[in-house]
Amino acid sequence: MSEFTAAFPNSRKIFVEGPQGVRVPMREIALSRGEPSLRVYDTSGPQGHDVKHGLPKLREAWVKARLDAHVSGRTGRCVTQLHYARRGEITPEMDFIAVREGLPAEFVRDEVARGRAIIPSNIHHLELEPMIIGRNFMVKINANIGNSAVSSSVEEEVEKLRWATLWGADTVMDLSTGKNIHETREWIIRNSAVPIGTVPIYQALEKVGGRPEDLTWEIYRDTLIEQCEQGVDYFTVHAGVLLRYIPMTARRTTGIVSRGGSILAKWCLAHHRENFTYTHFREICEIMRAYDVSFSLGDGLRPGSIADANDEAQFAELKTQGELNQIAWEHDVQVMNEGPGHIPMHLIKENMEKQLEWCKEAPFYTLGPLTTDIAPGYDHITSAIGAAMIGWYGTAMLCYVTPKEHLGLPNRDDVKAGVIAYRIAAHAADLAKGHPRAREWDDALSKARFDFRWEDQFNLAIDPVTARAYHDETLPADGAKLAHFCSMCGPKFCSMELTQQVRDYAREKGVEENAAVAVGLEEKAMEFRRRPEIYQPAGE
Amino acid sequence: MSEFTAAFPNSRKIFVEGPQGVRVPMREIALSRGEPSLRVYDTSGPQGHDVKHGLPKLREAWVKARLDAHVSGRTGRCVTQLHYARRGEITPEMDFIAVREGLPAEFVRDEVARGRAIIPSNIHHLELEPMIIGRNFMVKINANIGNSAVSSSVEEEVEKLRWATLWGADTVMDLSTGKNIHETREWIIRNSAVPIGTVPIYQALEKVGGRPEDLTWEIYRDTLIEQCEQGVDYFTVHAGVLLRYIPMTARRTTGIVSRGGSILAKWCLAHHRENFTYTHFREICEIMRAYDVSFSLGDGLRPGSIADANDEAQFAELKTQGELNQIAWEHDVQVMNEGPGHIPMHLIKENMEKQLEWCKEAPFYTLGPLTTDIAPGYDHITSAIGAAMIGWYGTAMLCYVTPKEHLGLPNRDDVKAGVIAYRIAAHAADLAKGHPRAREWDDALSKARFDFRWEDQFNLAIDPVTARAYHDETLPADGAKLAHFCSMCGPKFCSMELTQQVRDYAREKGVEENAAVAVGLEEKAMEFRRRPEIYQPAGE
Repeated sequence: MSEFTAAFPNSRKIFVEGPQGVRVPMREIALSRGEPSLRVYDTSGPQGHDVKHGLPKLREAWVKARLDAHVSGRTGRCVTQLHYARRGEITPEMDFIAVREGLPAEFVRDEVARGRAIIPSNIHHLELEPMIIGRNFMVKINANIGNSAVSSSVEEEVEKLRWATLWGADTVMDLSTGKNIHETREWIIRNSAVPIGTVPIYQALEKVGGRPEDLTWEIYRDTLIEQCEQGVDYFTVHAGVLLRYIPMTARRTTGIVSRGGSILAKWCLAHHRENFTYTHFREICEIMRAYDVSFSLGDGLRPGSIADANDEAQFAELKTQGELNQIAWEHDVQVMNEGPGHIPMHLIKENMEKQLEWCKEAPFYTLGPLTTDIAPGYDHITSAIGAAMIGWYGTAMLCYVTPKEHLGLPNRDDVKAGVIAYRIAAHAADLAKGHPRAREWDDALSKARFDFRWEDQFNLAIDPVTARAYHDETLPADGAKLAHFCSMCGPKFCSMELTQQVRDYAREKGVEENAAVAVGLEEKAMEFRRRPEIYQPAGE
Repeated sequence: MSEFTAAFPNSRKIFVEGPQGVRVPMREIALSRGEPSLRVYDTSGPQGHDVKHGLPKLREAWVKARLDAHVSGRTGRCVTQLHYARRGEITPEMDFIAVREGLPAEFVRDEVARGRAIIPSNIHHLELEPMIIGRNFMVKINANIGNSAVSSSVEEEVEKLRWATLWGADTVMDLSTGKNIHETREWIIRNSAVPIGTVPIYQALEKVGGRPEDLTWEIYRDTLIEQCEQGVDYFTVHAGVLLRYIPMTARRTTGIVSRGGSILAKWCLAHHRENFTYTHFREICEIMRAYDVSFSLGDGLRPGSIADANDEAQFAELKTQGELNQIAWEHDVQVMNEGPGHIPMHLIKENMEKQLEWCKEAPFYTLGPLTTDIAPGYDHITSAIGAAMIGWYGTAMLCYVTPKEHLGLPNRDDVKAGVIAYRIAAHAADLAKGHPRAREWDDALSKARFDFRWEDQFNLAIDPVTARAYHDETLPADGAKLAHFCSMCGPKFCSMELTQQVRDYAREKGVEENAAVAVGLEEKAMEFRRRPEIYQPAGE
């Protein structure tokens, strides 16, 4: 049995066809008793492929056709989705996304052209199933993986990628900092149907033996090109960490907590020079436009505690991010902005509002935010609260936080816990934003629940196996799954069962429910009393 | 080692003295390196007592003094905190709460007198450590326990009570529906330092063999008196489920999901008469005022799915709750209102606003709300999102939801998971509301984190043992707990360590940080480069 089938019983992968030959994977959940099956967004990617060979190259023909049409050489080349969108071209990637999101392709193109959405899709990442990040689309989530100096192997990282996307990660960031960064990334990209993001400064730092002050623009630039060639889809670049902002963090409770932010801060202080990713920003744009790598402008000065939320340093950097967006757009490079971090609920909205204003509606991509600092071990929850809220307010992608945040490296269970908490946050945000496809899923599940279709309820759950296991802890017998009651009330009294009777009664009589009471039929009351008490399920 | 010590290493229970001889328990967390210890709110109750003997009777003298002062007999008796508050009296219970919340006793009295807060405190529950429920106090959480027809024993329920309050439940509802309801409740109350709530209709239903249509006012009334005598502190009464509202649920996706609501709906339909808890509401008030049992006016028509949120039936009942509040207040009976349920984020605020308006600021007590239906198995998370938000908007108490919600009965781990998710939600709400004591905890933890005081970080965590265990999974050596790095970055590079250097540097030079950059001292850059790279901790 494949991992997909084991995770999602009664689901199968189907392909919905669209223009330009696109075939969009969706997960179709089959239901019982004649209920229509439900199709949900699917990030799990092609299944059953040998990791050593990588995934099929879905985009090969699309990218080749565009490159063939190009006349200029690599250096001046511009192959970004933003470039095509602005020219009015609907790429196969846009058609793919239109089917995936259930929205018109022209709308997809227009949102990309306005800079309000991005399609991270390096021309060297041919295994990619295109997706879009923008606030008028479904809220996306990112899962971080990556080995560190302390632990983890290449195989483990690829397995984490597959595991994270199986449960619903829309993009994955490879944050490796230890050995074999290049090799690990190669394996990840070749096996990934989702966009891969990186923080190139991490690898650059490895190249100079971990000494930030030894970094140079040339080493960084070469690292960018190396990663562009491999097929990384978006780069976190902390170009907004300016020398003059660094002292603003000195009196913070938790200073600078972003790794990339601190590396650059250390470099700036050591050389007393401006951040080289800022001074060379246009050159970076030139490189990224030649591969269609998107910017994820880092928030190196994000708050690391409730005490530091929405402070001067954080907002100074955000404003600079907005200026850098304009430069990226001048170069036809796609861009989104990273956001915090640790923010109490009442300050979350201000983040979204300032980002929309200063960054001119470029997609916002936040880490949580965590709404309190007091719960290490449960930061998937402290942050799912903030993530759901900021997603509702307009954040396009939510970077997950696992239960191990602040404590250690996530294992397989932590990755799953983080992804599921964030799928919940993203879905809650989609519901609140009124995304047309979001409600279908809730309605299908609630209807199954009300109808006592237990198997359907499990199969529709975000994590079917866990839902079933929890049910079976109390009532393991197979008969219980057909029962018109659940373990909370037991067989003698069940509120849902009773409500069903109320409803059936109203329907049977063929009388408008409101009228039924108004006319005050004692006769009805009599009949109701004569009905059999409670349906006794088989085996009880 | 006691459960308290096992759960909270380096914490001890202290008692803060106040007027009228009150001694208020708090949990004091000792920290290292001369940092001041932190005192946090403590719900765990007296430890180490034999369950068969129950807890010490803290309130015995207070209650006796008040009863001695009474002239009238039991029937006309009024011994409610609301009664004393309106007379301008500050009871020992109010003094206790003032110390506990860090607010003036006169403020406590005034909030109770206005009906904006309640102190659930049956005069027969002498073991109680008084607490307050109101939106100008810390947000409280309730944990539900209770056996059902399907499983669980008396001992298990008492153990669940102790376990739930150990982790932070402010009140506990005993929702038992199976055998031994009376005996289970007796054990629970005698061993509970937190208010106990019940839904008396459940026991009344048992008395008539589980047939809702056989319920009578007399059986219900006798059940109320029986439970008043035992010492139950608040009753859920579904007096707002009116006959004319029931048909409003017929076209819902999930009908009536409240057990109490459906019992009464079934009774109303069977007899075609108005809900007897509504028609006898004043008599119920008379009974409850004689013991100071508070109302928790049930939301029997709360939505059980996103599809049914904020519908006609729900709001019709809420409006009636507001009318019933006025009657309770006429009788000097304390009252709060129960709220939903399943509500998407964008509809949560409307619930709070309508409750404040229609129910004249009586405390609101909501179940979640769950912000999506698609995640059975994770409903502590789907609902912690909604709970945190509605707590921020003004809900005074949040009824927890465990991971087993909709699936089965919670076990020990589920109770803990539910309580912790809700402590997080309540604390996040306190922070957002600006409760003066809330930020202390976050700041202490973040400072410990930034200082690499790992032991302090664990001890300050909402769940110290889990935090430590997660850390130790990656870096088990004791040396790692003194290390100036964590497993995320490893010893060669750590962002927090670096930020500390940035800050030390700014401080050492004795120059204003902003000035330091403005004057552009190349000399500083040189010095910085000469500093030792990274502190190498012992054992690395």
